[in-house]
Amino acid sequence: MRETETEAGADSGSTGKRPLGVGMVGYAFMGAAHSQGWRTVGRVFDLPVRPVLSAVCGRDGGAVRAAADRLGWAAAETDWRALIARDDVDLVDICTPGDSHAEIALAALEAGKHVLCEKPLANTVEEAEAMAEAAERARARGQVAMVGFNYRRVPALALARRMVAGGRLGALRHVRLTYLQDWLVDASFPLTWRLRKDRAGSGALGDLGAHIVDLAQYLVGEPVAGVSALTETFVRERPLLEGASSGLTAEGGSRLGTVTVDDAAVFTARFPSGALASFEATRFAAGRKNALRLEINGSEGSLAFDLERLNELSFHDHTEPAASSGFRRILVTEPDHPYVDAWWPPGHGLGYEHTFVHQARDLLQAIATGARPEPSFADGLSVQRVLAAVEESAAKNSVYTLIPA
Amino acid sequence: MRETETEAGADSGSTGKRPLGVGMVGYAFMGAAHSQGWRTVGRVFDLPVRPVLSAVCGRDGGAVRAAADRLGWAAAETDWRALIARDDVDLVDICTPGDSHAEIALAALEAGKHVLCEKPLANTVEEAEAMAEAAERARARGQVAMVGFNYRRVPALALARRMVAGGRLGALRHVRLTYLQDWLVDASFPLTWRLRKDRAGSGALGDLGAHIVDLAQYLVGEPVAGVSALTETFVRERPLLEGASSGLTAEGGSRLGTVTVDDAAVFTARFPSGALASFEATRFAAGRKNALRLEINGSEGSLAFDLERLNELSFHDHTEPAASSGFRRILVTEPDHPYVDAWWPPGHGLGYEHTFVHQARDLLQAIATGARPEPSFADGLSVQRVLAAVEESAAKNSVYTLIPA
Amino acid sequence: MRETETEAGADSGSTGKRPLGVGMVGYAFMGAAHSQGWRTVGRVFDLPVRPVLSAVCGRDGGAVRAAADRLGWAAAETDWRALIARDDVDLVDICTPGDSHAEIALAALEAGKHVLCEKPLANTVEEAEAMAEAAERARARGQVAMVGFNYRRVPALALARRMVAGGRLGALRHVRLTYLQDWLVDASFPLTWRLRKDRAGSGALGDLGAHIVDLAQYLVGEPVAGVSALTETFVRERPLLEGASSGLTAEGGSRLGTVTVDDAAVFTARFPSGALASFEATRFAAGRKNALRLEINGSEGSLAFDLERLNELSFHDHTEPAASSGFRRILVTEPDHPYVDAWWPPGHGLGYEHTFVHQARDLLQAIATGARPEPSFADGLSVQRVLAAVEESAAKNSVYTLIPA
Amino acid sequence: MRETETEAGADSGSTGKRPLGVGMVGYAFMGAAHSQGWRTVGRVFDLPVRPVLSAVCGRDGGAVRAAADRLGWAAAETDWRALIARDDVDLVDICTPGDSHAEIALAALEAGKHVLCEKPLANTVEEAEAMAEAAERARARGQVAMVGFNYRRVPALALARRMVAGGRLGALRHVRLTYLQDWLVDASFPLTWRLRKDRAGSGALGDLGAHIVDLAQYLVGEPVAGVSALTETFVRERPLLEGASSGLTAEGGSRLGTVTVDDAAVFTARFPSGALASFEATRFAAGRKNALRLEINGSEGSLAFDLERLNELSFHDHTEPAASSGFRRILVTEPDHPYVDAWWPPGHGLGYEHTFVHQARDLLQAIATGARPEPSFADGLSVQRVLAAVEESAAKNSVYTLIPA
Repeated sequence: MRETETEAGADSGSTGKRPLGVGMVGYAFMGAAHSQGWRTVGRVFDLPVRPVLSAVCGRDGGAVRAAADRLGWAAAETDWRALIARDDVDLVDICTPGDSHAEIALAALEAGKHVLCEKPLANTVEEAEAMAEAAERARARGQVAMVGFNYRRVPALALARRMVAGGRLGALRHVRLTYLQDWLVDASFPLTWRLRKDRAGSGALGDLGAHIVDLAQYLVGEPVAGVSALTETFVRERPLLEGASSGLTAEGGSRLGTVTVDDAAVFTARFPSGALASFEATRFAAGRKNALRLEINGSEGSLAFDLERLNELSFHDHTEPAASSGFRRILVTEPDHPYVDAWWPPGHGLGYEHTFVHQARDLLQAIATGARPEPSFADGLSVQRVLAAVEESAAKNSVYTLIPA
Repeated sequence: MRETETEAGADSGSTGKRPLGVGMVGYAFMGAAHSQGWRTVGRVFDLPVRPVLSAVCGRDGGAVRAAADRLGWAAAETDWRALIARDDVDLVDICTPGDSHAEIALAALEAGKHVLCEKPLANTVEEAEAMAEAAERARARGQVAMVGFNYRRVPALALARRMVAGGRLGALRHVRLTYLQDWLVDASFPLTWRLRKDRAGSGALGDLGAHIVDLAQYLVGEPVAGVSALTETFVRERPLLEGASSGLTAEGGSRLGTVTVDDAAVFTARFPSGALASFEATRFAAGRKNALRLEINGSEGSLAFDLERLNELSFHDHTEPAASSGFRRILVTEPDHPYVDAWWPPGHGLGYEHTFVHQARDLLQAIATGARPEPSFADGLSVQRVLAAVEESAAKNSVYTLIPA
Repeated sequence: MRETETEAGADSGSTGKRPLGVGMVGYAFMGAAHSQGWRTVGRVFDLPVRPVLSAVCGRDGGAVRAAADRLGWAAAETDWRALIARDDVDLVDICTPGDSHAEIALAALEAGKHVLCEKPLANTVEEAEAMAEAAERARARGQVAMVGFNYRRVPALALARRMVAGGRLGALRHVRLTYLQDWLVDASFPLTWRLRKDRAGSGALGDLGAHIVDLAQYLVGEPVAGVSALTETFVRERPLLEGASSGLTAEGGSRLGTVTVDDAAVFTARFPSGALASFEATRFAAGRKNALRLEINGSEGSLAFDLERLNELSFHDHTEPAASSGFRRILVTEPDHPYVDAWWPPGHGLGYEHTFVHQARDLLQAIATGARPEPSFADGLSVQRVLAAVEESAAKNSVYTLIPA
Repeated sequence: MRETETEAGADSGSTGKRPLGVGMVGYAFMGAAHSQGWRTVGRVFDLPVRPVLSAVCGRDGGAVRAAADRLGWAAAETDWRALIARDDVDLVDICTPGDSHAEIALAALEAGKHVLCEKPLANTVEEAEAMAEAAERARARGQVAMVGFNYRRVPALALARRMVAGGRLGALRHVRLTYLQDWLVDASFPLTWRLRKDRAGSGALGDLGAHIVDLAQYLVGEPVAGVSALTETFVRERPLLEGASSGLTAEGGSRLGTVTVDDAAVFTARFPSGALASFEATRFAAGRKNALRLEINGSEGSLAFDLERLNELSFHDHTEPAASSGFRRILVTEPDHPYVDAWWPPGHGLGYEHTFVHQARDLLQAIATGARPEPSFADGLSVQRVLAAVEESAAKNSVYTLIPA
C-alpha cells in the first residue's frame, strides 16, 4: 500500500494542468456540497485548470480538521483572514451564513482572490451593493466573482433558459414559481440561525425566495420591475437551541425564543416586458420537501419544472396542431442537453449535488477565459433588491413597490 | 313503434314521484351542460321529486325550438318573463351571461319560483346584494336559490372539503389556486361577449377567478379577509365578431374592437384564521386547457387537485412516519366518496358534466327538504365582493384591500 | 305540471327522425351503463335515427319494472323471447352474463333484429363461431351485429388507433397491456357469478383479458398470431352467496364454495408483423382499480394510455430532435379528437360512461348507413380464439399456441 | 501551490484508517461510474477502511494512462494479471465485457484478492458456477466477492426490499418488471460488442434482463421457479464498426454484419411462493431511456418504481380505509431511508451514480466485518440460471422451463 497521499488534499483531475487552489469558509451543508463539487469537477469535465482543495476554514479547530480530513481538504484554518492570506488559495469559496458574506468577500477580493459566494449574496442591499462594486473593480484586475445560485446549473433549467432565449416560448405572459419546503411545520423545531434575522437576514424569503427570484430573472432574461407582497410568521416562538446545530437538523430545549424572520412570503410581480409573475416561498408546506416548481407561459409555448424531479423539463409547443400537442416530459439526460455529455448515457439521471459540480466547472471556465461569470455579484445584488422590495411592500400594506434599476 | 313521446320533455326518472318543472334560460355551453344534468339526475340518484324539463328560453325562436328538441325540453319560449310565468315551471335555471342574471333571478324569485343561477352571481356587488336579499326573503316563503359553482360537486373536491372540515389537515397555512386556460393565446380569437365588460362584467377574473375564490372559501370554510391584486389585458384589440358566436368558439372578421376585460388576474390574500393564499386566473396559459389546480397545506396534512384529472385527489398525511409518507393519489371513485355510490364501480371515472347532475341532485334535495342550499346567493355575493376587491386593489397599486363582511 | 310522459320511455333526441326501438336484456351494471348511452346519444350527437328505449327484460318482474322506471325504459318484460318479439324493438341489446349471449343473439338475429352484445361475445369458441356466422348471414339481410368492446370508444384510444393507422409510430415492435383491478384481493369477497366458470366462462381472462386482447388487435390492426400463458387462482375457496348479488358488490355467508375461474392471466404473444406483446389481466392488483394500461413502441414513436386517466394519451414522436423530445400528455378533449366535438370545450373531460354513448352512436350510424359495424361479431370471435388459446397454452405448460385464422 | 499530489491516486477520505487498495479492470462507462464510487465513498460515509484508487488496467497503454489521470487512479497497467499481482491492490474491480469476467475473477480470487464483478456475472452458467464455487472457497479464507447489481443500492429499491421483508405487502401475488431502453431503435446504430454473442453473451436479456431478474429475486426474497419466454431480434444486420467504440456510443461504416444477440426478451415466471411474474427487457422502446419499472402487488399493499424517477417509491397500503387510500409517492430522501442520512436534506435527490457509491460502501463494510456480501456470486449465478432458462424456453416454443435450484 502506498501511503504518499497522506494529508494531501483531493486533486480534481488532469495532472499537468495549471493548478488553482481553493479555500473554503464553512463546512456544514453547503460546505459539504461545494466540496463534492470541487473534488469531482476535474474527474468529469475537461477543464482548463486543475482545482486543488487547499484549505477549509471554521472556528472550531478540532471540528474543522475533522471536516478537512473527511471532505478532502489539504489543510484547515480557524481564521478566515488566514485562509485568504494563504499562497495556495487562489479562490475563496464562502459557505457561511449571510451575515458574514460581505466582510469575507470584500477582503478576499481586496486580496486579489477569485470569489464564489453562497446565496443570498448578503443580508442587506447596502452590503450587496458594496460587494457588486468591489467585484466590478476586481474584474478589471482579472478576478472573477460569482454568486452561488446553483439551480441555474440544473441541466433542465439551463435547457429552459436556452429554450426561452431561443424564442421557443414566444412572448412571455406568465411566470409562476414556488419554493415549498416543510421543515418548520413541526412547531417544536428549534430556533436555529436560519430563524434569526441577525444571522440569516430573512427567513423563507432569503433562503428559498432568493432562488426563485434569481431563476425567474435568469429564465425571463430581465429583472423584476416591481412587487406586491405578503409575508407571515406562523409560529412566532420556538425552543432555543441547546448545544450545536448543523444545517437543517438541530434539537431544541425547553426555553422559547422569538422567531425574527418570515416563515413564508407570497408575492406577485411584473416584468418590464409585460409578463405577470407570482412567487411563493415557504417552509410550511407539509409534504413538500424541495418543491421548487415553476411554469412559464408564452405566446408560442410553455415550460414547467419541479426540483423534486430535477431530471425532467416539461414543454408544450403551442405551434403544433392541437390534436397531437401537449406537455411533453423531456428527460434532460441527452448528450445535447447542458452539462450532460460529461456524465452518463441517456436516462441515467443526475442529482442535487451535480449543480455544484457544474457551478465549479462554469466558475473555472470563467477564471480561465476571463469571461464574465454568471450569476455575477451584480445578479446577486439584483435579487437582493427584489427581496428588499418584497419586505418593503409587505410592510406597506402590500402596495406595489418598484425595484430600483 | 310507439310515438307517444313526441314533443314530450325528458322526464328524469321515478314515475309516481312529485314532478318538479324546470324552465331554463339560455341554451349554449352552460345550457347544454345543465340539460344533461336535468335529464340524467333522476335516472341515477334516488330523488324525493321528479324533475321535468318543461321549457327552455332563448331570443331566437327557431334556434330555441331546435335546442329544445335536441336537448330534451318539452317547450320553447322566446321571452324569459313568459318562461317564468308558466305553470309547469317551478324552478328557473339561469344560464345566460352575467348582465341578465339579476333581472331574471329577481323576477323569478318574485314569482315564487326556485332559482338556480350560473356563476358569477352578477356583474356587480350591488346586483349581487339585491339578489342575496331577495333570496333570503324568498327562503322565508320556502323558495330555494342556488348559485352554480358546479365545481363544489366534483367528488374529489367534495371529499377535500370533508377532509378539511374533519380536521385531517390541522391548522391551514397555505392555500394556492390557479385556473389556467389558453383559448385567448391566439391573438386572432374574436371579441365575443366574454371579452366585453358590459356583458361579462369582467374577464378571466369573473369567469375563472370566481370559481377558485368560491372553492377557496368553500374548502377553507371562511371568507377571504383581504386581497392584493394585479390584472392585465395582454391583447387589447381583437377582431369584431361577424355573425353568431356560441360559447367559446367563434370567428372574427377584419375589423378590430377593444377588449374591455382582464385577460388575467393574479392576487394574494389572507384568510381570517391566518392562512396565506394566492390565486391566478388566466386565459393565456398556453397548453393548459382547464387547469383549475389547488393545493392546501396545513399543520397535519396537505391536499392537491387538478381539474384536468378530476377523478383524483392528492393527499399527504403529515402525521405519518416520514419514512413511508408522501402524497397519495386517491382515485375518488369509491362508494364512500361523495356522490359516487350512485354511479359505477371503483376506477370507472366521471367527467365534467357530472358536476351538473350532482348540482341538480343537491338542489332538488334542498327543495324537498327545505335545507339551506349551498352555495347560496349569499355565497355568490361573498365571491362577488372578493372579485370587486381584486379590481379595486388592482386599480389602487395593488394595495391590500379588505373585503367587507 | 304536464303528466303526459308517464310510463313513456326516454326518447333520445331529434323529434321527427325515424325512430329505432331498443330492447335491452339485463339491467345490472352493464344495463345501467347502456341505458345512459341510449338516453343520451341523441341529445349530443346528430343522428340519422332516433333511438327509443322501448323495453327492458329481466327474470324478476318487480325488479325489472322498477329498473325500467328508473333507467327510462317504456316497458318491462320477463322473457327475453317476448322482448325480441316486440314490434317496437328493432335492436336487441344483450347485457347478460356470457352463458346466455349465444342463445339470445342467435334468436334476435333470426328474428330480423339488429344486435348489440356485451363482451366477451360468448363463453366458448364454438358459440362465438355460430354467432359470427349468423351475423354474417344477417348482414346480407341488412342487419347489424356489434360486440360491446366499449373501450374502443374512449376518445384517447380511438385517437391512438388513428395515429397508429396513420403511421405515426412506424413499424411496431412492442405492445404491452395490463388490465389490473383489485376487488378480489379480499379473500372474503363472495362467490358471485363472475367467479363461476359455468356462468362467466372464465375469470379475469374473459372479463378483463378480453378487453385488452380486443384493444391490442384493434390498435395494431391485425390479429394475435400465438400466445404463451400462465393463469392462476390465488384464492380457491370463497364464501357462497347468500341472497341477491348485483354486479360487483355482494355479501357472502359462512359456507365456502370453489372458485372455478382464473384470478389472473399473464401471457406473451406475437403479432404476424413481428411485434412482441405481453398481456396481464388480474383482479388481485391491490390499489389498482381500473388500470387498463397500454404502451406501444414503434420505430418512429410510442403511445401510452391508462384508463384511470382516460382523457389523456401519451405520445412520443421519435422523429423529433432528441434534445426536445419526450412523452407528451395529449389531453384528448380537443374538437379534432374522435367523438369530442359533440361534447364540451377543451379540458372538460369525459368519463367512463361516455364510451356507451359513443358505442350507441357508432351502432346507430352503422344501422343507418349499412356500413360494417366495428367491432363485429367476427372481431368478437377473434378475441374468443385468443382467450381459448391462452387457456390451452396455460394447460399445456405454457407452450406457444397458434391462433387459428 | 503544493504539487505533491502529482501522480497520486485519489484517496477517499479518513486519513489514519486502514487503507484498502483497489485495482480496476476496464475504464469505459462502468469504469467511470465505479471510479466515481471509489473516489466519493469515503468522503460521505464513515467507513471502517480507507479505499485507495491504486491502479486501473486496460489494453491500450496510452489510453489507460489518460484514463488513470482523469479518473483519479494512481497507476495504470496494461495486463490484468499484473494488476492482480500488485501489492497495493487488495480488491479487484472487474468492469469489462462479460466474456472476460470468469477468467479475471477466478485469477483474482486465486491470488487472495477481494473481487467486485460487474453484471451479468458471466456469459454462461458453467462460468458462473465456477465463479460461485471459487467465491465460496475464498470466503473461507476471508475474501469477499460481490456482483455489481448496483440497482439494489437505489435507496428507493432498498426501501422497497425493507418494506416487502417487513410484511407491508402481505402475500405477494404479482411481480412485473420492465427494463426499456431505445438506443437500438435506429437501424443504423452499429454492431458494437454489446450486439455480439461472443462478447456480451446475450443482448437485452443479459444487459437489462439480468438487472430485473436480480431485482425481482431480491425484492421477493426467493429465486424464480420457472419461466416461459419469447425473444426477438428486430434488426438482424447492422453496420460494422469502423474504429473504436466506447460503451453506448459508436459510429458504423457501410458494411453490414449480423447481430447475434436478442434485441428484446419477454417472459413470464412463477415464484415458489405462488406469485406470478412478467418481465420485459428491450432496447427498442422508443422514448424510454432507462425505464426500469416494477410493480409488486400483495394482499396488503403494492409498490411501484421507475428508474427514470429514482428518488421516488410509490406505495399503496391496502389496509387503510378505501376512502382515503391510494398510491403515495414517497420521496426517498429522508434520513430514515437506506443510505440517505449520509447525503443531503430531504428532497435533495440523488442520481444514478450514487448506486456505485453505495455499492462501494456495502462492499467495504462486508470486507471489514466479514459479513457475507450481497449480492454474492451465488446470487449472480442464480440470475445466470434464469437467463439460461429464458433462452432455453425461447428455443423450445416458450415451454415453461424450471430453474435448477
